[in-house]
Amino acid sequence: MLLNENAPAVILVEPQMGENIGAAARAMLNFGLSDMRIVKPRDGWPNERAVALAARADLVLEKARIFDSVAEATEDLQHVYATTARPRDMIKHVATPNSAAKAMRELEATGGRAGILFGKESYGLTSEDITYADTIITVPLNPEFTSINLGQAVLLVAYEYFQLADETPDLVIRNEERRATKKEVVALFDRIESSLDANHYFDPIKARRPVILRNMRNMFQRFDLMESDIRAFHGIIKGLTAKKRDK
Amino acid sequence: MLLNENAPAVILVEPQMGENIGAAARAMLNFGLSDMRIVKPRDGWPNERAVALAARADLVLEKARIFDSVAEATEDLQHVYATTARPRDMIKHVATPNSAAKAMRELEATGGRAGILFGKESYGLTSEDITYADTIITVPLNPEFTSINLGQAVLLVAYEYFQLADETPDLVIRNEERRATKKEVVALFDRIESSLDANHYFDPIKARRPVILRNMRNMFQRFDLMESDIRAFHGIIKGLTAKKRDK
Repeated sequence: MLLNENAPAVILVEPQMGENIGAAARAMLNFGLSDMRIVKPRDGWPNERAVALAARADLVLEKARIFDSVAEATEDLQHVYATTARPRDMIKHVATPNSAAKAMRELEATGGRAGILFGKESYGLTSEDITYADTIITVPLNPEFTSINLGQAVLLVAYEYFQLADETPDLVIRNEERRATKKEVVALFDRIESSLDANHYFDPIKARRPVILRNMRNMFQRFDLMESDIRAFHGIIKGLTAKKRDK
Repeated sequence: MLLNENAPAVILVEPQMGENIGAAARAMLNFGLSDMRIVKPRDGWPNERAVALAARADLVLEKARIFDSVAEATEDLQHVYATTARPRDMIKHVATPNSAAKAMRELEATGGRAGILFGKESYGLTSEDITYADTIITVPLNPEFTSINLGQAVLLVAYEYFQLADETPDLVIRNEERRATKKEVVALFDRIESSLDANHYFDPIKARRPVILRNMRNMFQRFDLMESDIRAFHGIIKGLTAKKRDK
């Protein structure tokens, strides 16, 4: 199991629904987090509905620790974030999930540990809870529809953290294919050109032949052709130019 | 309501649970998306459980359109993404939600529209569905726990799109060209296919016809075809299949 023991702790403060605790466990495991801490769960602990929803992420629940206060749940951490969508009458640093993820990675690199507070479903974190946080994380949302549930909030924050694990290349080709050489591309184009000539395609439009051919060449160069694409095009040309068989 | 009419369409392919359709609607509205399209919903339409879960996001459901096929649901779009975690035996561009979001913003800035396919809960998109996509979106996940539900997948992709609201695209198309619509791409492919059939190309290799055609479709989807490319290909096909003139 790919788990990072130094990854941030997820601290659920007075969660109400077991299902949401289970969904949070799944979201954590999706992105390699495993340190769940729960402050005063409404329905006690363990919670059957949390286990049912967590399914294979129940290993996160098994390791979860229960605390009586935010203070105790955060005492071993170096930096605490509070997730809240609502502006509060207090002066705090405010981060996006992305900028917080960068800061958490930096802290981790220097041997420190971060934790993220998530409030109860009904009204989130209290002003008192937030006093334990260094920084607020606010997910940028459509201001007309800011309602996201606990599992989704954990998902987005954990997602941003995980994305910084390594710089994943943007575009990868999914198999052992190699790109076509320019020689193959040019040979393909020569075949199209001579096939069109053999079919007298340009006879009525002779003046436009050079421009049409140049545009076609540019088009094929743009396609980032793979070796198998070259073969596919040769197949198409063969298929289109073959003499019809007598049936 | 902050909604962007040119934002990507979210296309749910054969969704099974009304609750997940409702969750997808909420995730869309959270990030300002509103064009939901549904291909063959298992439980028909409208769906009460979708409405119940969507709550105030029911306005997305009210506008949702129902289609009989992926082809119809995507025909007005210029670029189609397929969300899938599984590697497939096909050559496709692969993007993260973040790099896809950048590309979607760039397309939007040039007047184009994108759509994102999400498969059914039980086994996702089929290989056939994926042939309609230009690019695959894969969410980087803990390889040991890759299970995320439909609402979460929509949430992450929509989230990345929304985060780029204020960024200026750094790539623009250098002229007045517009990208081909999917309808034009599919029509081109249908012509190639029927031309090959008319020429009895597949007669000696009947068993391989479906795989060859699927690979060809994937190849053309990958080319990011412009309207002028479509015309060029029609010209080539016409040129290759025209009867030879007598000299």
